[in-house]
Amino acid sequence: MIILGIDPGYAIVGTGVVEYAACRFRVLEAAAVTTPAGEAFPARLARLHAGVTDIINRHHPTAMAIEKLYFNTNTTTAIDVAQARGVLVLAAKQCGVPVFEYTPLQVKQAVVGYGRAEKQQVQEMVRLLLRLEARPKPDDVADALAIAICHAHTAGGGC
Amino acid sequence: MIILGIDPGYAIVGTGVVEYAACRFRVLEAAAVTTPAGEAFPARLARLHAGVTDIINRHHPTAMAIEKLYFNTNTTTAIDVAQARGVLVLAAKQCGVPVFEYTPLQVKQAVVGYGRAEKQQVQEMVRLLLRLEARPKPDDVADALAIAICHAHTAGGGC
Repeated sequence: MIILGIDPGYAIVGTGVVEYAACRFRVLEAAAVTTPAGEAFPARLARLHAGVTDIINRHHPTAMAIEKLYFNTNTTTAIDVAQARGVLVLAAKQCGVPVFEYTPLQVKQAVVGYGRAEKQQVQEMVRLLLRLEARPKPDDVADALAIAICHAHTAGGGC
Repeated sequence: MIILGIDPGYAIVGTGVVEYAACRFRVLEAAAVTTPAGEAFPARLARLHAGVTDIINRHHPTAMAIEKLYFNTNTTTAIDVAQARGVLVLAAKQCGVPVFEYTPLQVKQAVVGYGRAEKQQVQEMVRLLLRLEARPKPDDVADALAIAICHAHTAGGGC
């Protein structure tokens, strides 16, 4: 299966496309979709929607895995992240890609086997599982790959 | 000018299209775009995006006026309303319609002339300004029309 992992945001969306077959991963693409801080918000939303639609059209993933949002603080940012997440989910739906959502706890448990793992432990496991020479940068891309791995381990059956 | 007012939501989006010319309003359309509670969230987002895109394509508004979101409580609902708002703003941007946002305070001040007006006062002023026989129903549609009036009064110049 081909999984598109998404770490939602409006300035930076982390994306990672991985192929998972025979219990092995292969990274097809991992990149950040970014929007300029000075641009009007509707234009930033359109840029995110177009960017993710383009990734979907090039890789035809069988699933999008995206982080579930929880917010307690910084409400203005939270609202804008949620608005961005809406257009990312829309892009998947419009392309016929089913969407699965995971909490940060679920991602850590699925990747590291421990829900309270440190961010660096998650990144190191992402590097090992994907057989990368270095930890993916920026963090948003590493997080997106972690979410894709989480979906593979959750939906892909045991090894 | 033709203004599309939007009261954002994910179960019900209030929409109201008004023409404002020579300091008079004419309602071109006022309706709720709804999504079924049992439907998966990505499908609901797609339904909202398609519904509002359809309204834009039929009326070619010169502006979309939409309520600015503030949240203090009920975070799960808040996140979903914000996600829905994202796809509504996206629809406008994709159709080349500029988006303007107003706080509830600004809407009340522009419609009733008093920022702490009661909901019923706002609805009654909407009825009078739009020369309707009854207050628009549901409330979401009345709110959408109020936001459209707010934009007309704010951007349309004095009478």
